[in-house]
Amino acid sequence: MALLNENYLKLPGSYLFAEIAKRVTQFKAENPEANIIRLGIGDVTKPLTPTVIESLHKAVDEMANAETFRGYGPEQGYNFLIKKIIETDYIPRGITLDEDEVFVSDGSKSDVGNIQEIFGVHNKVAITDPVYPVYLDTNVMAGRTGTISNGVFENVTYLPCNAENKFIPELPKEKVDLIYLCVPNNPTGTTLSRSELKKWVDYAKANNSIILFDAAYEAYIQDPELPHSIYEIEGAKDVAIEFRSFSKTAGFTGTRCAFTVVPKTVMGLTSKGEPHPLNKLWNRRQTTKFNGVPYIIQKGAEAVYSPEGQAEIKGIVSYYMDNARIIKEGLDSIGLETFGGVNAPYIWLKTPKGMDSWSFFDKLLREVHIVGTPGTGFGPAGEGYFRLTAFGNKEATIEAVERIKTKLKL
Amino acid sequence: MALLNENYLKLPGSYLFAEIAKRVTQFKAENPEANIIRLGIGDVTKPLTPTVIESLHKAVDEMANAETFRGYGPEQGYNFLIKKIIETDYIPRGITLDEDEVFVSDGSKSDVGNIQEIFGVHNKVAITDPVYPVYLDTNVMAGRTGTISNGVFENVTYLPCNAENKFIPELPKEKVDLIYLCVPNNPTGTTLSRSELKKWVDYAKANNSIILFDAAYEAYIQDPELPHSIYEIEGAKDVAIEFRSFSKTAGFTGTRCAFTVVPKTVMGLTSKGEPHPLNKLWNRRQTTKFNGVPYIIQKGAEAVYSPEGQAEIKGIVSYYMDNARIIKEGLDSIGLETFGGVNAPYIWLKTPKGMDSWSFFDKLLREVHIVGTPGTGFGPAGEGYFRLTAFGNKEATIEAVERIKTKLKL
Repeated sequence: MALLNENYLKLPGSYLFAEIAKRVTQFKAENPEANIIRLGIGDVTKPLTPTVIESLHKAVDEMANAETFRGYGPEQGYNFLIKKIIETDYIPRGITLDEDEVFVSDGSKSDVGNIQEIFGVHNKVAITDPVYPVYLDTNVMAGRTGTISNGVFENVTYLPCNAENKFIPELPKEKVDLIYLCVPNNPTGTTLSRSELKKWVDYAKANNSIILFDAAYEAYIQDPELPHSIYEIEGAKDVAIEFRSFSKTAGFTGTRCAFTVVPKTVMGLTSKGEPHPLNKLWNRRQTTKFNGVPYIIQKGAEAVYSPEGQAEIKGIVSYYMDNARIIKEGLDSIGLETFGGVNAPYIWLKTPKGMDSWSFFDKLLREVHIVGTPGTGFGPAGEGYFRLTAFGNKEATIEAVERIKTKLKL
Repeated sequence: MALLNENYLKLPGSYLFAEIAKRVTQFKAENPEANIIRLGIGDVTKPLTPTVIESLHKAVDEMANAETFRGYGPEQGYNFLIKKIIETDYIPRGITLDEDEVFVSDGSKSDVGNIQEIFGVHNKVAITDPVYPVYLDTNVMAGRTGTISNGVFENVTYLPCNAENKFIPELPKEKVDLIYLCVPNNPTGTTLSRSELKKWVDYAKANNSIILFDAAYEAYIQDPELPHSIYEIEGAKDVAIEFRSFSKTAGFTGTRCAFTVVPKTVMGLTSKGEPHPLNKLWNRRQTTKFNGVPYIIQKGAEAVYSPEGQAEIKGIVSYYMDNARIIKEGLDSIGLETFGGVNAPYIWLKTPKGMDSWSFFDKLLREVHIVGTPGTGFGPAGEGYFRLTAFGNKEATIEAVERIKTKLKL
C-alpha cells in the first residue's frame, strides 16, 4: 500500500499567508466598501524596469525563429547570466567565484526549500526565531524534526531574536549542523555586522556546520560598513551556501529568477566522516529535478546587470526604502516601538499593550483596513510583534500611515 | 557535523545526457570539421508559434505598468490557464476535474522528480526498464532503494520491456506501491492500449498502489482508439497522478511550463492505514517549496489553447511525426529493427549484430556524425537498443537518415 510521507502531517494546518488571505477575504465579504491597503505579504508593487522589459521582448523574438530559438538550456543557468552575477555582485566585494559555483534558479523559496535534500536526515537544524517559515517547514517535511507542541518542534534549535537581544541571535549552546541565517532579516528587518557574522563562520568551522545564508534582501543595505555577502567574511567559502534573488531587487516576484552560490570548498560529511563537496550534490539535485529557468526570463535578469539596469534597481530600492522611512517615522511618532526599516524593507513592531499578534492583525484590519503580518506566524518568539513591509506604492503607504496615526485606537 | 545525504553517493557517476555531451565535445575537438546531427537528447527545434509569441509580448508589456504588473501569483498556477487545460485537454475526453486538482509547474521533470517527496520512504517502487532516468534517480536520492550492482538497484522492481514482450510491461509479481508509467513511452516510443492501462488501474486499486502517469507525449498519439489520459480508464481517478507538459507539444523545452493532475480522490495511507488525500500533500509541497511559473510564461501557455494555438501545435506534431516516419522507414529499409515512431516521437531500435548500446553510440558518432542515445542509459533492459528522436529539423533528419543508409558500415 502506498504510504504517504507522514512528516507532512506534523505541519500545523495552514500556511501563514493562506490564513491571512482567508481572514482578508472574509473581512472584504463583510465590508465590501473598505479600501484595504496591503502591507502584509512581501510582494512588490513597482513594475519591471524599461531595460528589463526591452530585454524580455528581444528574447521573446529570439524564440520565434528557428535560428535563434532556445530549447533546453543548462540546468544551472546560462553562462551569460552567471558571468554578470559574479562580475557585478561578487568581484567588486573581493569575492572570486567559479562559474560552476553559481546556480540560477526559479526562486530563493525553491532553493532554500530544496537545499536540505542534499543533507542527511540526522542533522540538527538551527533557525532564528522568528523566521521565514520555509526553512523550518521543509525540514519538518524531510523528517529532521519531531512533532510540534505549543508552536515548537522537537529536535530543532530555536535561536530567539527579540527586542532584548536587539534581534541578534546568540550562538547555540548545543552543537548544531545546519544553520539558517537571513541577513538582512525577514521578518525583523534587522541586520548582522561583520563581527557578528564572523562569530557564525568561526562557529561553523569549529563544529563542521553549514550556514545556509539567505541574502535575498542584501540590496536594501544602506550602511556601507555592513557586508552584503557571507563570503566577505574570511573562511565563509568553506562553510556557507548563499541564496540571492531578483524578486525584491528587480521586481521579479512574478517573473521568477534567483541564484544560489555553492562554493566547491564547502563539504558535507558521510557518517564515516569522509568529506564530499556539496557543490557536486547540489549540481546532481538540480540536473535531476530541475530543467533551468526560462531563457526569456534569464535574459530579463541579465538586463538587470547593464548600467541602465543597475541604475533602475537602485531607484527601486530607494523608492521602497523611502516607504520604510515613512512607516517607521509614522509609527514612532505615535509611540509604537519599531525595529528594522533602515537596512531592510521590513518594519517589525512591538504590538501595543502586550496585545497578541493575531489580535493586532484583526485590529489593524478592522479599524484602519490595513493588512500586516502577525509576528507569531514566523515562530513563537514572534508573538507580540508584527511585520509591515515597505513594498507598497508610495501613496498607499502614506495613506496607511496616516490612518494608523489618526484612526487606530491605541 | 553536517552530514550529507548519503543516498546521493549511490548514484552512478554521471547523468546520461552529461556523458553524451562529454563524448560529443571530445569528438568535436578531434574532428572540428564534422557536421554533427543531434537526434539524441529529446530537444525540439521548431520555434515558438506566432500565437504564443504574441501572447508573451503582451504579457511582457503588462509587466511594464504598475496597473497591470503581476507579482506573486498562486503557487498552483493562474486560473486562466487551469480552466483552459481542463476545458481543452480533459472535458472533451469525458474527464471532469476541479480547478484545484491541476497544478501548473515549471516542468514535468521537476514534478515527476518532486512527487516522490509526498510518499513515505518505505514504499516499494516499480519502474519499467528502460525508463526515463529521473523516476529512478529521485527515488535513489530519497533512500527508497539499496545500492546498485551491475546497473540494478536493490529494492526496486524493474519491469523489463523488450522486443519479446512488445515493450508492454507485465504486472509485477510482488506487491508494489508506486508505479511509474510513461505513455506514450520515452524511450521506447511504444504505447499502451486502453485494456493494458485498465490492468494497471485494477492492479493499483487491488493493492492500494499509486500510478505516476507521465503523459508528456500524449499529443503524439495518432491512433484514435488510444487513450490520451489515464483518467479515461474507469477508476483511475482513485489511483493515478498524471503529468503533462508543453515542452514537446508547443516547443516549451526552453520556456518551461507543465502541469500535474492530482485528483482529490487519490489517497495515500499512514502506517496505520488512515487515508489522506495526496492532493493536500502536493498542495502543501508546492506552496512551501515553489512560487509558481512566471506570469509571462503562463500567458504563453494559455495561448496554446486558443483556436490558432491549437492549430499551430497540430502542425508542430505533424512535422515531427513526419520526421519519425522518415527515420523509421529509412532504418527499416536497411534492415534495422525499429519500434515506436508511430504514436510517439521516439524511434527505438535494436543495435545491429548484438552490438552494445555505447559502442553503437560511438559508431554512429564516428562514422556518420550522428548523436543518438544509448539504450543502456535508460536501464539494464535498454542494453542492445538505441534511441533516435524525431525532434530535429526536417532537412537534418533527412540528411541523417541518408547518411545512415549510405555510409554506416553494418
